[in-house]
Amino acid sequence: MTDVTLEVDLGERGYPIHIGDGLLGRKELLRDKVRGSQVAVITNDVVGPLYLSRLEDALAGLDVDVYTLPDGEQHKNLESYGAIMDFLMERRHNRSTTLVALGGGVVGDITGFVAATFQRGVAFVQVPTTLLAQVDSSVGGKTAINHPRGKNMIGAFYQPRCVIADTTVLNSLGEREFRAGLAEVLKYGVIADAEFFGWLESNANALLGREPEALAQAVRRSCEIKAAVVAEDEMEAGVRAILNYGHTFGHAIETLTGYGEVLHGEAVATGMVMAADLSVRQGWLAGAEGKRIKAAVEACGLPVVAPPVDPDDMLGVMSIDKKVVNGRMRLVLARAIGTVTVTEDVDARSLRATLAAGEDLCVG
Amino acid sequence: MTDVTLEVDLGERGYPIHIGDGLLGRKELLRDKVRGSQVAVITNDVVGPLYLSRLEDALAGLDVDVYTLPDGEQHKNLESYGAIMDFLMERRHNRSTTLVALGGGVVGDITGFVAATFQRGVAFVQVPTTLLAQVDSSVGGKTAINHPRGKNMIGAFYQPRCVIADTTVLNSLGEREFRAGLAEVLKYGVIADAEFFGWLESNANALLGREPEALAQAVRRSCEIKAAVVAEDEMEAGVRAILNYGHTFGHAIETLTGYGEVLHGEAVATGMVMAADLSVRQGWLAGAEGKRIKAAVEACGLPVVAPPVDPDDMLGVMSIDKKVVNGRMRLVLARAIGTVTVTEDVDARSLRATLAAGEDLCVG
Repeated sequence: MTDVTLEVDLGERGYPIHIGDGLLGRKELLRDKVRGSQVAVITNDVVGPLYLSRLEDALAGLDVDVYTLPDGEQHKNLESYGAIMDFLMERRHNRSTTLVALGGGVVGDITGFVAATFQRGVAFVQVPTTLLAQVDSSVGGKTAINHPRGKNMIGAFYQPRCVIADTTVLNSLGEREFRAGLAEVLKYGVIADAEFFGWLESNANALLGREPEALAQAVRRSCEIKAAVVAEDEMEAGVRAILNYGHTFGHAIETLTGYGEVLHGEAVATGMVMAADLSVRQGWLAGAEGKRIKAAVEACGLPVVAPPVDPDDMLGVMSIDKKVVNGRMRLVLARAIGTVTVTEDVDARSLRATLAAGEDLCVG
Repeated sequence: MTDVTLEVDLGERGYPIHIGDGLLGRKELLRDKVRGSQVAVITNDVVGPLYLSRLEDALAGLDVDVYTLPDGEQHKNLESYGAIMDFLMERRHNRSTTLVALGGGVVGDITGFVAATFQRGVAFVQVPTTLLAQVDSSVGGKTAINHPRGKNMIGAFYQPRCVIADTTVLNSLGEREFRAGLAEVLKYGVIADAEFFGWLESNANALLGREPEALAQAVRRSCEIKAAVVAEDEMEAGVRAILNYGHTFGHAIETLTGYGEVLHGEAVATGMVMAADLSVRQGWLAGAEGKRIKAAVEACGLPVVAPPVDPDDMLGVMSIDKKVVNGRMRLVLARAIGTVTVTEDVDARSLRATLAAGEDLCVG
C-alpha cells in the first residue's frame, strides 16, 4: 500500500491522519506541525529506546525535551499527569510549545490530557506505536487519565494537530499487545461494516502474521470509520457512543482486575463477546451472529470468557461508567453484525446472566 | 437598581449573567440550570456556613452533595483538584451531574476546572460571592489551578451554564477582600472605558462604603465589558489578552510571595501601577495619566508599592507566565486611560527600572 492521508473533518479542529510504512522517516510530517521553538516528547521506557532517535532527527534544531513514563496502564493516573506538568514547568515550556505523544494508548491519552490543560491548551501530535493506538485511541480527541474507581474518568475532548501512524513500527510489538489491538479493529466491523467484518474473518491469519498489505488495510479502514463517526459527533452527544461497543463491560473488567493486569484490548475483546451475548439474550441479535463475533475474537487469539469476578461487582462498576445517564445504564448492543444501537433498554435478568456466563458466552 | 441579566454571546456556549440584590432567594435561577438529578456544590469553609442553606433550598428534591474546601488561594492546587475528583467518584456522580461553585475566585476556578475535566466535561454554575469573582473570575470560562511555579498554569477554557451574582452577599465580605475586588473594577476602566474610570474616581468613597447603587453599577459595567471582550475572543487568541492588564506583574508577586499571602486583587492592584509605570517610562502613557491610575488604586485602599523582591526573581517568574510566546515576554501596556495594547515591545531597561522602583512607581 502506498501511504494514505485521511482527514478528520472537524472544521477548525480538523486534522490529517497519515498512515503508511516508514512514516517516521518522513521528517516533514512532524516538523511541519511544530510552530514554536519548544517541543516536549512524551514516551515510555519501552517505546522511547526504539523510536525516539527518529523523532529527534525530525526535530533537529528545536528545543526538544523528553519525558519518559514507565510502561503500563497503571501509570495513566493523576500522579503521572502531575509529574509531566512539573517537568514542563521546570523546563519552562510556554503556551507555544508542542507536545508529541510517542507510544501507545496510555502515552497518547495522558499526553493529550496534559496538552488540553497545560496553560489551558497547547498543540500536540499523536505518533501512535501500537495497533490499538493507531486504529483507535490516537484518533478523535478523547484524552484522559484513570481514577482508581473508574477508567478515563478525568479528561477532556481535545484534538491533536495530526496523527502519524507508521505501520512499520507494529512489527516490534509483542504478540499479546498486537492481538489486543485487533480487538478494536474487529469492533469497527461489528459496529459499522459487515463487509469489513467478513474480510477480517477471512484474513485473521494474515493479520496475525502481520502481513503488511492486510495490516495496512485494517488500519486504514478502521481509521476511516472512526474519523467518520467522530466528524459526525465530536463530543459524544449521540452516535459517537457506538464506538464504546464492548467497552462498558471491558472497562469494568479492567477496573476490577486492576489497571495493567488485563490489556485494554483484551478486556474490550471479552466485553464485545459479552455485549453480543446480552444482545442475543435480549432477542436483538441472531444467535448465529453472536457466535460469529465470538469466533472472530477467538480467531484473533483474544479471550472470550467472562472474567471470574462477582457479577455484583461488575454491575457496581458498570453503573458508574461514564455512559450512565441520570442513573440509567446505557449500553451499546448489536442488532446485526454491522449495526449497533445505543440503548437504556437493558434487561436486568439478561445482564446478570451474561455477567455470570463464564465460559458459556454466545453459546445459545 | 433592578436586577439585570447580561448575555455572554458565545453561540452554543453562551450563557446569562444575572446581577442583582437577593438573587440567591430566586430559586428558579439555579434550579432551571440543573438538568439531571445530581448536584455537587463546591464551596469553602467561610462561605458555606453563610449561604449554603439558600442553595440547598433552591435545590430541594435533588441529590445534593457538598464538598467544602479550606479557604485560601493556597488550596487552588492539584491536590484539592484530586480530592474533589475522589469525592465525585465516591458519591457516584455521573456525566449528567451539575457542579455549583459557591465562593470566590478560588472556588470558581477549581470547580470550573473539575467541571471541564470530570468525565470529559459536566455542567456547572457559578455563584460568585466575592466582588472579584462577580466582576471577573466567574465570567468568561477561564478555569484553572495553580502550579508551585506559576499561577493558573493548569486549566481549561470551559464556560459555565450561568452566573448568579447576588450583590447582597458582598456586604459580608471582609474589608481587605472587598477592596481587592475593586482592583479588577478599576482595571476595566483602564483597559476599555475612560468614562467609567472617571466615574470610579468620583465614586471611590461610595464604593468603599458599599452603597448599593454604586456597587450594582460597578458590577454591571465590569461584567458588560468582560462579556463583550470574551464574546469577541473566547480562547484568548487576541484582544482578550487586554484583560490581563496588571496581571503578569501581579502573578509574579503572588508566586514570589507564596499563594495566599497577598490577595490576587492586591497583587493586580500593584501590578496595574507597575504596568502604568512601565508605560510611562516607555513614553507610551502621559505621566499625568500614570499618576491618576496610581491615585485611583490608592483611593480604593489598595497597595501601590512594588514588592520588596529581587527584580531578577520577578523577571524570572514573569518570563514563564502564560503570556510568554516563543520566549518573548508579552505585556499589556497603556496608551491612555481606556486604551491599552498587548505588546512584545518591552524595553528591558525600563522594565528593570519599574521592578526596582519600590515606592517610586508613577512619580515621573
